[in-house]
This record gives sequence, C-alpha cells and structure tokens, in this order.
Amino acid sequence: MSIEALARLAEERVDHRFKGLPPDADGLTVGELAAQRRNLFTDGFATPVLALSAERLEHNLELMEAYAARHGLVFAPHGKTSMAPQLFQRQIEHGAWGITLAVPHQVRVARAFGIERVFLANELVDAAALRWVSAELAADPSFRFVCYVDSVRGVELMDAALKGAVRPVDVVVELAAGEGARTGARTEAECAAVADAVAAVPTLRLVGVAGYEGEVPRADPERVAAWLGRLVALAVDFDKAGRFAAAGLDEIVVSAGGSAWFDAVADVFAGIPALSLPVLKLLRSGAYVSHDDGHYRKLTPFNRVPEEGALEPAFRLWAQVVSRPSQEQAFVNAGKRDAAYDLDLPFAQVVRRDGAERPATGVTVTALSDQHAWLGTTAEADLEVGDWVGMGLSHPCTSFDKWPLIPVAEADGTVVDYIRTFF
Amino acid sequence: MSIEALARLAEERVDHRFKGLPPDADGLTVGELAAQRRNLFTDGFATPVLALSAERLEHNLELMEAYAARHGLVFAPHGKTSMAPQLFQRQIEHGAWGITLAVPHQVRVARAFGIERVFLANELVDAAALRWVSAELAADPSFRFVCYVDSVRGVELMDAALKGAVRPVDVVVELAAGEGARTGARTEAECAAVADAVAAVPTLRLVGVAGYEGEVPRADPERVAAWLGRLVALAVDFDKAGRFAAAGLDEIVVSAGGSAWFDAVADVFAGIPALSLPVLKLLRSGAYVSHDDGHYRKLTPFNRVPEEGALEPAFRLWAQVVSRPSQEQAFVNAGKRDAAYDLDLPFAQVVRRDGAERPATGVTVTALSDQHAWLGTTAEADLEVGDWVGMGLSHPCTSFDKWPLIPVAEADGTVVDYIRTFF
Repeated sequence: MSIEALARLAEERVDHRFKGLPPDADGLTVGELAAQRRNLFTDGFATPVLALSAERLEHNLELMEAYAARHGLVFAPHGKTSMAPQLFQRQIEHGAWGITLAVPHQVRVARAFGIERVFLANELVDAAALRWVSAELAADPSFRFVCYVDSVRGVELMDAALKGAVRPVDVVVELAAGEGARTGARTEAECAAVADAVAAVPTLRLVGVAGYEGEVPRADPERVAAWLGRLVALAVDFDKAGRFAAAGLDEIVVSAGGSAWFDAVADVFAGIPALSLPVLKLLRSGAYVSHDDGHYRKLTPFNRVPEEGALEPAFRLWAQVVSRPSQEQAFVNAGKRDAAYDLDLPFAQVVRRDGAERPATGVTVTALSDQHAWLGTTAEADLEVGDWVGMGLSHPCTSFDKWPLIPVAEADGTVVDYIRTFF
Repeated sequence: MSIEALARLAEERVDHRFKGLPPDADGLTVGELAAQRRNLFTDGFATPVLALSAERLEHNLELMEAYAARHGLVFAPHGKTSMAPQLFQRQIEHGAWGITLAVPHQVRVARAFGIERVFLANELVDAAALRWVSAELAADPSFRFVCYVDSVRGVELMDAALKGAVRPVDVVVELAAGEGARTGARTEAECAAVADAVAAVPTLRLVGVAGYEGEVPRADPERVAAWLGRLVALAVDFDKAGRFAAAGLDEIVVSAGGSAWFDAVADVFAGIPALSLPVLKLLRSGAYVSHDDGHYRKLTPFNRVPEEGALEPAFRLWAQVVSRPSQEQAFVNAGKRDAAYDLDLPFAQVVRRDGAERPATGVTVTALSDQHAWLGTTAEADLEVGDWVGMGLSHPCTSFDKWPLIPVAEADGTVVDYIRTFF
C-alpha cells in the first residue's frame, strides 16, 4: 500500500463534505480531529451519525485472518463492501493476499492507495477501463491483476481493447452457480470454449477458474458443496488439458467464497488435488469486516461452526428523536440517506438520554423516508424528543456507501479514528 | 450564493473519487474536463455512468419557475433531492426564494456555498447543530433561516441549546398531515400549545405554519385539499390570536408542497385571506429538477393539469452488458450502488452498439445486486456482451445520492458540465 496516500487522508479538512461530524471541528484536519479523541456522545457530533466499533472491527479482522490461515486459504476480502483504503490496509496487515473488487472504478481507488494485488470478480469489457488497467500493468511490474471472463464475445472485446499491451491481462474463467444464477458460463463446455478463446489471443493469460457460490439457486449446504465440486473439477480438467501451461505461470487460481458459505468453500477447497502448479485457493468474503445485525447475522457460516468463533456487528447508527406525535409513533432524523434498507430495516437497539443508555424496549423501525425513520412504539417504550436512538443495520455494502467519513469509536464513545470511503 | 465557492468546484481534480469519468482525464480539473466537451459515448467515459440531460434540466427549471410565478407562490425547492450547489444556484437564478433542506448537515452544505435563505422542513433539536445555526445567524445578518417545531419538548430543547443567542431562530409550527402520518402536531390545540411555548422563550420567533401534504393518509385530491384547508385555517386562527405580532416580523410563512400535490397547494393557497402581514406562500417541491421515469412520472401534478406543461425525466444511467449467459438473461455492471431501487427498479430504455441507438425491446430489469443489474430478455431482445444499456430511474433522491459528480450531456452526447453532489 501507499503509506503516503493513506497519510494524505489524515490531512483532509473536516468540512461540509462529511456529515455527522462536529460542526465546531470545521477546518481541522481529520488527523487533528482524531487526535482530540472526542466522545461520540458528548463532544459535539451531530445526528445522524454512523459509528464503527473499534474493538469489533479489530475482532473481525483477527477472526477472519485466523479462519483463512487455519483452512489453508489465501484471502482477498471483497473491498466493494467498504471501499475504504484504511480498511484495505488493515485487511492486508491481517494477512490478506490482496483485495477483491467489482468494477473498474473500485480498482482505480485501490490503485490510488497502492494496492498491489487486485482480484476483479467480474467481467471487464469496457475499453476505456481496459486501457487504463493495461497502462497500470505496464507502469508497475509489481501490480498483479486478475479478472473474470465468461464469454467468447467478452474475450474478443478484451483483446480488441488490449491490442499492443505490454503485459497480458490475467483472467479466470467464471463458472455460473447454476441455471438462472448470475454471471458465469453455464456449462463446462462453455467454460472450455472461453478458455480456448483466451488461449488464442496474446493479450490475455488464463490463470484459473472462479465463481460465486452465493448465487447457487435454492442454496443449501449440499447444493453449494456440489457446485464447489464442479468448480474444482473444472480446474482439474483444465489442468489435465494443459490449459495452465502459459509461459511464466507459477500458480493456478481457484476462487470462490462470499460471506454466507465460506465454511463450504474451506471444506471443498481442502480437497483440491495436486495440480501441475501450486494452487492459490482464493477466498473473497468481504462483509465480515463490519458484519451486521440482520442479513449476515443470520447467514454467517460461523452459525454452523461456532467452535471457530463469531463475528461481531460493528456498525451502530445514531439518530435523534425529532418528533413524538402520538403514543404509537416517533420519528428520528435518519432515513434512506443514512441507513441500509434493501434487506431489512434498521433495528432499534438502545436509547440514550442524559448520558444513560438503556435497551430500546418497545421501539421498532417500521419504515424509512428519505430523511426520517418511522418508529412504532408500544406502551412500554420510554422515548421522547431529543433522545438518541442507536440502531443496528443489515447489509454492510449498503451501509458503508452512505457515509464518506465514519468515526471509529471505542466502547466508551471515544472516537479514535475516521474511516474514509470512496463510492 | 458564493460565486467563489462554486468556482472552486471547477478547480477540483478529476480522480478516483468520481466514478464513471474517463480514466484518462485523471489529474485534469473538472473545469478543464468540461472545457474539452467530451462525448459521453465515444470519449473514454467508463461504465457505469449516470448522465443528466442538459436540455431537460433547463426545461424543468424553467417550467417550475413559470408555474410558481403563475400561481403567486414563492418557491424554495427541496435541496435534499440533489444536494448539488450548482443546481441550487440555477434554481435561485430561476426565481427561487431560497432552498428547503431536511437536516442540519445539508444546511452546512448550503451555507458553504453562500445560500442566504434556508427553510429546514424538519424539527431541529440537536444542540450541536443549533449552536452552529445560531453562530451562522450571528455572523451573517443576511442569513434567513426557518425551521419546524411540533412539540413543547422540542421548544424547550431548542431554547436550552440557544441560550444567549444574538438572534432568535425563526420557527413555523408543523401541522401533521393526519393521524398516523409523519411528523407534526396532530391537532390544532397541540399546535397552539407549541406556539404558546415558542412565545414564552426569547430564543425562538414564531413566523408561520407549515406541513407536508405528501403524507396525508390515503391521499386523494379531496383529502389533500381538506388538509391544506386546515393548514390555512391554522394560519388564520394564529393571526387572529395575535401570534404573529413579534417585533420586526414583516411576513407570515405558510408552507406546504412536495412533488405530488403542488396543484392542490396552488389552488388552496390562492384562497388564503388577507392576514395582518403579507403572506409568504412557500412551495417546496424538489423532485422536479431531474424528474424521473417512474414514481414521479406517475405522481406529478402535471398529469392533472397538462395545459400547464410537463416535466421531462433528465436522468439516464448507462451500464454495459458484461455477461449474457443464456437467451433469457443478461447482466450489466450497475447495481444498488448506482441506481435508485427503493420505489421501482430501473427501466431499460435504449441499447447502444457501434454508435447506433435503438429501443431496448424485450429487455427488462428484474433485480439488482450490489454491482449488477439482472436483465430478463425475451426472444426479440438483441443484446450482447459489450452493449451499453441506457436506463431510466425512479426517485431522484436515491439517484443523485449515488453519484458525487454527474456529467451533464446534451442530446448528441456532448458533456457540457459536471454536477457535484454532497451527501
């Protein structure tokens, strides 16, 4: 990573670009504000404000580092989740091989911060983006870049855009997770045709196979394992067919693994037989870094393997009650602009008043407007205008992307850092 | 507005912060890039990219300027929609009295660009934000600020935060749109109690009444008109009761009007009788600036009064087909990170290949992942990997907020400007 680029983040000015921060911090640098170690609840932060837990973030980083190491997996966590170079750095410090990304813009962010290994878990046929990738590869011999291919037409478009490139672009053939699933060639025969097309052009180099078990239709442990078995068999067949004999290739990439089935990936990848080259078993799970209080709380593989640990939800969104028009309703000043709402509504967890925090008994988020959350309140709810409500969120990807600068707070509220995101 | 602050936007560097822009424009200023008048389709823009239509934007700005003037309404368009100071400027050039906003962070953005009149259509009880507003009022005699109050408790919290303020904060009492509706005091008696509380503190000044007819339960023209009648009657009663006799007050604010019922607001507000002071009839509609291809296309009042004109949808999201795994499916590289999805999915409108554009016959968006749109394709669909798909969006508020810098393109694709947003 580029220490200089990361350091420049601390030199950014706190101003109107960043919501939730103390208005009286305007004009300080982010580094100066962090050095003040302000308290999230008493030192002038404005609502709504999203906070990350310092301790839980560290816990999650350590847990997945240990998990990947224990299972012999190389880890390239999906960076689209946070798009936060400071978190990319911590993920790499915690053993990550590199960062997985979804679209070329995200690769530009990663490269601006000096990420050396990028796995683009997507097809890339955009000529402007390909020319940019090619220039990055030419300019920096240490830049390792791998992306998907799933069609002969895609290979042709890539080759056309990359004509004359100094270094070929490394690609993996994407096997779809089933009929009706997302991207990826649907059959092994189609995968072979794509690999043939890759072999026929000088601008691309086949380095492995990949896919995303999270899209297996009607996913359950058996179906997911069966698809992972197909992916491994594809790698074995390609290897037997001599498809990984390109000059200079020193490992074969086999990659899968979102945030719902990495236990299955670990199990099936443990059985990958010896191939003609060492195998880079690349896991891509990204949601673990913040985890959540909804979707991933339910889906995390740690629910099936509790002896391996447990992720902890690291986000809490704080909003203030601005209206209490009836005994059944209250409104806080955070809405769709502030909270994920695509998988679940936020979960009211705690209420703060006069420095005391207690459970949000009888309080439920029933809807979101653009800038309000609608709260339903039962007779037991003790809630009044001015109270702060702490809410858990569901879906890290649609939480991070609503906050360009996120305070990281310790359990007592001391804000020790600020995480910059780029969406 | 601050011409200097706006000019500084043109001095920002094009870099990894801004998705969709040409990678080879890195390092140019936004102003330099605009001066190149690049073509959206042929000059290196990367997918996905959201574009605003220059002509349609101008058309919408002119149409609402004329509408408000024709109906004797003062216009403070809701700025939360775009959070784009350049559009605020154009709205003000097109006759707007000021800008409506929803939360204090948005007021900070507006003030950073020198907006002189802000209507905060929300309760504000955050002490840190109130102290900041108070300091802005003290520092700038030309800053006009009005916000809602809907509870006695809220008045007490405001007064506590504002103790010692140089200028009082102007407030309007918010009348709720009905039982079970959003914020606002539910009854006229509660509104009077809130007004009494305001009158009892030196830090606040009552300047009018307001509400939001968009939340009238089971809204139809009759129910909306009935509620607007209640709002007007409340202003009349407050005036008769001498509630607008504060020293220095020279007008009474009566405000309503989102983007679905401004025809009803115009009709009912036309009947406001003479009060003891001139009445500022303040309309707040915000979605008109971009309009849309879904929710507001259906809801716009211009459908009821076509003789007054028609708004035009100004957004088009361009994404590229990256995968075509079967005859029934295709995938483009834009998802929840790029498109509004809270009210409707995007609408596939046109397909571009080799410079030719045609209707997206047989192509439907069926779902969004974080970074993909799922397209369903019938036998008539002519779609292949590499094609660009132009999509219409539903809900301006959740479209603008996914794009920090948005190209403004003329009909032939020439990009003439870039709109910066702050979320």
